[in-house]
Amino acid sequence: MSTPALDATHDPAVRSWVSSANEPQADFPIQNLPFGVFRRQGSGEAWRGGVAIGDNILDLQALHGAGMALPHTVTAPLGAAAQSSLNEFMALGEPCWHALRLALFALLREGAAEREAVARCLVPQAQAQMNVPARIGDFTDFYASIHHATAVGRLFRPDNPLLPNYTWVPIGYHGRSSSIGVSGQQFHRPLGQRLPPGQTTPALLPSARVDYELELGVFVGPGNEPGQRIPLDETGAHIFGLCVLNDWSARDIQAWEYQPLGPFLAKNFATTISPWIITAEALAPFRVPHERMPGAPAPLDYLDNERNRGAGALDVQIEAWISTAAMRARGDAPQRLSHSSFRHSYWTVAQMLAHHSVNGCNLQPGDLLGTGTQSGPAPEEAGSLLELTRGGKQPLALPGGEQRTFLEDGDEIELRAWCEAPGRRRIGFGSATGRLLPART
Amino acid sequence: MSTPALDATHDPAVRSWVSSANEPQADFPIQNLPFGVFRRQGSGEAWRGGVAIGDNILDLQALHGAGMALPHTVTAPLGAAAQSSLNEFMALGEPCWHALRLALFALLREGAAEREAVARCLVPQAQAQMNVPARIGDFTDFYASIHHATAVGRLFRPDNPLLPNYTWVPIGYHGRSSSIGVSGQQFHRPLGQRLPPGQTTPALLPSARVDYELELGVFVGPGNEPGQRIPLDETGAHIFGLCVLNDWSARDIQAWEYQPLGPFLAKNFATTISPWIITAEALAPFRVPHERMPGAPAPLDYLDNERNRGAGALDVQIEAWISTAAMRARGDAPQRLSHSSFRHSYWTVAQMLAHHSVNGCNLQPGDLLGTGTQSGPAPEEAGSLLELTRGGKQPLALPGGEQRTFLEDGDEIELRAWCEAPGRRRIGFGSATGRLLPART
Repeated sequence: MSTPALDATHDPAVRSWVSSANEPQADFPIQNLPFGVFRRQGSGEAWRGGVAIGDNILDLQALHGAGMALPHTVTAPLGAAAQSSLNEFMALGEPCWHALRLALFALLREGAAEREAVARCLVPQAQAQMNVPARIGDFTDFYASIHHATAVGRLFRPDNPLLPNYTWVPIGYHGRSSSIGVSGQQFHRPLGQRLPPGQTTPALLPSARVDYELELGVFVGPGNEPGQRIPLDETGAHIFGLCVLNDWSARDIQAWEYQPLGPFLAKNFATTISPWIITAEALAPFRVPHERMPGAPAPLDYLDNERNRGAGALDVQIEAWISTAAMRARGDAPQRLSHSSFRHSYWTVAQMLAHHSVNGCNLQPGDLLGTGTQSGPAPEEAGSLLELTRGGKQPLALPGGEQRTFLEDGDEIELRAWCEAPGRRRIGFGSATGRLLPART
Repeated sequence: MSTPALDATHDPAVRSWVSSANEPQADFPIQNLPFGVFRRQGSGEAWRGGVAIGDNILDLQALHGAGMALPHTVTAPLGAAAQSSLNEFMALGEPCWHALRLALFALLREGAAEREAVARCLVPQAQAQMNVPARIGDFTDFYASIHHATAVGRLFRPDNPLLPNYTWVPIGYHGRSSSIGVSGQQFHRPLGQRLPPGQTTPALLPSARVDYELELGVFVGPGNEPGQRIPLDETGAHIFGLCVLNDWSARDIQAWEYQPLGPFLAKNFATTISPWIITAEALAPFRVPHERMPGAPAPLDYLDNERNRGAGALDVQIEAWISTAAMRARGDAPQRLSHSSFRHSYWTVAQMLAHHSVNGCNLQPGDLLGTGTQSGPAPEEAGSLLELTRGGKQPLALPGGEQRTFLEDGDEIELRAWCEAPGRRRIGFGSATGRLLPART
């Protein structure tokens, strides 16, 4: 990622005239300003771009049409960000993203002269329906947590948990774009071929091992032409922002199908992302050194530079919470399953981009990268049930006497993320919630 | 695939008033009528749909605008097929595809009353520039030739060439959409991490093992909603048509990166398809029984029905030809490297679709499936250099004293395909040509 200079938009003392944005635990203070695509529920109106502020959304289409006097540098970015998908805005690049952020910050801060006109462009989030914020051309999922790779490898290949390429190659694979949904997604337990325990002949059965995976997603900005590459030094200009991502997985289908070409039906039935994209600029105060693990080799030159070592990691707190049908019926609060930080990732976002394009593969605006399950070093920091239950051998206890190895019908998983740092305003990602429905018969 | 009844459009005796379509070896006789997207070279005009007939293209946008009296069932399909990508036409489904085929056949056959007006809508192929014919949302590549899987498996895993899941699961993985190009594509030799022989530390180097893969591509029609599936019996309604596909591969990058999540940078730098989509209807006369290999298990029920056994395979002849820079400089003709038939495929197109959607994964109009390298049972039917040269150990001799293990800079590979059967008019796919340029420095 780039290291945009911190400026007034990061000043923790600045407040918004949208009072809900000033609550200490608000996900969307004026220092955040994430982008999404929404419409008023039941309105039948067209999807449009918006920016979250407190518990409201600033309707960028309304703002664009309000005829307000704005800096001329903002005209093109505002028009692009107001559209029904953010691809065109993502394509414009950093200077445009920055210009719009500055302008929105000025309009929303306490004392803004335009307050009255801007207030007419606010829509309560409670009245809004969110959409996938971009047309995702290609979705690539990485495998960037060495803790996850080691734990999963131990289950699939006990004799050989971490493969020799792991500490050299930012391992990734192409995922499915069509089945990516936004928070609120519901999907049926997938059918698939699996080898029942003790059998040598597979059967087509509902998966008995549906799992979540706690990941972050990265939306690509301008991207590169075919045959070009994005050097590590220039990756920052191509990272629009981040969201939370749940890479739902059917472990039994995966175990039977994944050799030799990788996961396919085990993961392409649904992927859930959070609706708000937290911009790289908003995340700048939470950059931290990318620490190399003891004994790990130095990355090859194309994956290594001073900036990446000094501030390539991001301290994003990530959590997974479960609520079962029984818990919801009783009114129980969700229970937390996982908690970690993206700072533990073996590979940074910048390294993922530099690697992905080093062979000339062209990345396009709106492409989505997943970070892979972000498990931390401690067992309770594991980002999937596969790891938390040791491959289904150690059930987890839930409130009300329930227990889980893998997900049951009706289970809902909510992924949350946020950033905190001393002397900085907390910013949140909101959440990505998805629910497993029974298999279709 | 469906089994559309053969009708007048398959009658080998019918001739077109476009005389080049009547040449015995013509790829595009009136019995073919494949769809593509083109524009006049250097015209700057918008891309538009067209149908190949002999050495001409029927400009569907011009035809649509010509105000000709056509059956009303043709209005919507013609409007959709005239657009700058064929997705909308693909979404319309079989009855619309059939109606347009019938109408075009009537307009182009000898004795058609509309000949003069239709002739004004013809563009010589020599004056046309072709485009990728659809916005490809997701690209999935299968691995459907057991001969290829066994030969490659022997090289990557000598002790374990064919994995136990192969005869049960139509193995596939998600590929890269952004780098799919149309015939004429040129691309640079990819850089990537590889482990030089005898080393334990990888290096970033140009691939020394760039290869072609001889495949067919399948364009998806209407597709399915998330959570639904396409039963084998209904797959025919979702197969729009086929093209030729070259899945360029960097074997040394692949060997180092592919565990455990499959090929990534080894294959996503370029994929070349032929510009014309041969419709499932045009291919109907070339359906043949899908013969099970001796000793192979019966497929699971969801991959097995009478129609698939009786006429699920397609006898499409496929070839790969090479011309090196030296050969072109001398004016030598290309040399054939591979020749096989898609009839040898272990899995049929119908089985690929039924499997892909069995877990509820949604397929969309314009999605592309690759069949995987279609190597036949005989050694000379191998569809890649990896197989033909036994992993680079047995160089192939070329005219003029050159030899090849893998591709050299300047090499051009042309894939061709066609169908022939007794009592049937030969139809051709045209070709997919691509050229390897030197690595960028």
